[in-house]
Amino acid sequence: MARETAKEAKHPKQAFGWAARDSSGVLSPFNFSRRATGEKDVTFKVLYCGVCHTDIHMIKNEWGFSSYPMVPGHEVVGEVTEVGSKVEKFKVGDKVGVGYIVGSCRSCDNCTNDLENYCPKIMLTSGAFVGDGTTTYGGYSDLMVADEHFIVRIPDTLSLDATAPLLCAGITVYSPLRYYGLDKPGLHVGVVGLGGLGHVAIKFAKAMGLKVTVISTSSNKKQEAMEHLGADSFLVSRDHDQIKAAIGTMDGIIDTVSATHPLLPLIDLLKSNGKLVLVGAPEKPFELPAFPLIMGRKMVGGSCTGSMKEMQEMIDFAAEHNIKAEVEVIPIDYVNTAMERLHKGDVRYRFVIDIGNTLNSGL
Amino acid sequence: MARETAKEAKHPKQAFGWAARDSSGVLSPFNFSRRATGEKDVTFKVLYCGVCHTDIHMIKNEWGFSSYPMVPGHEVVGEVTEVGSKVEKFKVGDKVGVGYIVGSCRSCDNCTNDLENYCPKIMLTSGAFVGDGTTTYGGYSDLMVADEHFIVRIPDTLSLDATAPLLCAGITVYSPLRYYGLDKPGLHVGVVGLGGLGHVAIKFAKAMGLKVTVISTSSNKKQEAMEHLGADSFLVSRDHDQIKAAIGTMDGIIDTVSATHPLLPLIDLLKSNGKLVLVGAPEKPFELPAFPLIMGRKMVGGSCTGSMKEMQEMIDFAAEHNIKAEVEVIPIDYVNTAMERLHKGDVRYRFVIDIGNTLNSGL
Repeated sequence: MARETAKEAKHPKQAFGWAARDSSGVLSPFNFSRRATGEKDVTFKVLYCGVCHTDIHMIKNEWGFSSYPMVPGHEVVGEVTEVGSKVEKFKVGDKVGVGYIVGSCRSCDNCTNDLENYCPKIMLTSGAFVGDGTTTYGGYSDLMVADEHFIVRIPDTLSLDATAPLLCAGITVYSPLRYYGLDKPGLHVGVVGLGGLGHVAIKFAKAMGLKVTVISTSSNKKQEAMEHLGADSFLVSRDHDQIKAAIGTMDGIIDTVSATHPLLPLIDLLKSNGKLVLVGAPEKPFELPAFPLIMGRKMVGGSCTGSMKEMQEMIDFAAEHNIKAEVEVIPIDYVNTAMERLHKGDVRYRFVIDIGNTLNSGL
Repeated sequence: MARETAKEAKHPKQAFGWAARDSSGVLSPFNFSRRATGEKDVTFKVLYCGVCHTDIHMIKNEWGFSSYPMVPGHEVVGEVTEVGSKVEKFKVGDKVGVGYIVGSCRSCDNCTNDLENYCPKIMLTSGAFVGDGTTTYGGYSDLMVADEHFIVRIPDTLSLDATAPLLCAGITVYSPLRYYGLDKPGLHVGVVGLGGLGHVAIKFAKAMGLKVTVISTSSNKKQEAMEHLGADSFLVSRDHDQIKAAIGTMDGIIDTVSATHPLLPLIDLLKSNGKLVLVGAPEKPFELPAFPLIMGRKMVGGSCTGSMKEMQEMIDFAAEHNIKAEVEVIPIDYVNTAMERLHKGDVRYRFVIDIGNTLNSGL
């Protein structure tokens, strides 16, 4: 059930974006306000914002906890326009980004161990209750204000449009490659699903020195995956002969698919001690047979975005290895069409909204 | 379907044990033969052999790959009577043990990394095809012959009857505590199921300095678990209030239950980054919801017995910390009754057959 947003507190900064007003998910222009730049806050002009599949779930209230009006967007990059008196890491003019989270308790075990992304009081960038009656508004908007702890620096060598998707899609695949030890040169990883997440998973994995096999339901994207994105091989998951020949060959698999699918063939592709990491979440439970896990000491794990420390590492790694998302840059008034195309998987591989040049309040 | 054993090759060593002849699983006296002591072989007189739940599955062909006649037993301890000319680690009179495996290829990646237990060509101690038309015969017998690589030394300080179950039940829980990093003092682990495996899991975990909570379907064993076995707390899995109060408190769980049961409540008991390790295998797949794994970076893994290196470490650790299985020592002619009682869970906590004093061929 969608929630009614309480009467909005009036904040001092006038802001403008595009919001969904109900579970139709249709986005339209929306005037709102943002808080003043606090002592530890960084305010920045939004230049680009990526369109994540999660945005569709949220604007349509498909997970049941959306509130309206909702300004989506959690792959946000821009240029700093103001910093608070106690901000240490950023200055006006810096290129910065915000990902999936803009707040956490800062005091729990996870927060004190650089794992804000697993804080029970995590505050998401869009649609989270703030406590003063407002919710967080995301990056489909002209400006953002966030505590500097939740801001990452974008090195000058990275193009901003192609970097925006790294702040969610990128970190979502980078973090588990690191955490699950699938980052050692020579290891063989599979990437299930070749969308926004999958295509950057290939790039990060290759930059780490891994052998990468894409696992996809059809061979449509084979040539592109191998010639353009750098995958070493390509398995069509419905081709039993191909799958059979690859049994027991992979050290790990990053599974980005959020539609229900069988896990057993993926578990079978793993070597002993192999790790299957889920980063896409089907609504229905998977079927998990115990025997193959036990007989091969295999595991199935999950991973959710990344910590702020990892976010900065990931962006710096992307700069070092020239990793860019493949993007289709769109104007804001194309966003409803983009959502329809994204829903059908018709994008290679991420829509990015050119907020800086196309979002115009008309004021 | 049960397999017919091919015509038995005649080996030079006369041996005697108790075997099942068909899927009724009834055990009765059985004369057979064992190979001569090869260059790298150790021959030992069996003194005690534990009765594992797997023995029931195997003698009744419940997994569909049993062969008959079958001499069960893979928790075998005894005294060396003969060693081959190239044996380096053992001499006549040594106390030794054999667990779940007596052979592997010795050349694959797993074998060369001290992970024989995950070798694709693993040879089980009972019921495995040897290649000369015979199968391996287990420890419900008067003597055994095995390559010294698959033999462990039992320190003199350990009592042999209480040590036998460590060779399967013990290693099955010790190995995942080590591999999954659940062996750091101060960590909190849950142990699901308080049988042959669960009760030694408590002892190993406590010796590692962990906080241990038993998770059981009923409170019957609470007092014993806490006062006698050393558990720190006890959760009745059907008591929702108890479970709710313990949500998010455990670093790991060793799940020893081989009956179908829901995983979600166990996953919920884990902290972020927590690990649920399955060592018991229900025939039907589990239901695995993705969201809780992803939101807490949790994992579900498996583990199967242990390597020979770990086996020796485990036994030495048991000697150092005076860890013993709780056993009910029985004569061989009680074994069919013991199987019935084990099937009903009526044993605290492991039957061990006194082979040395009660197995008598009548010759």
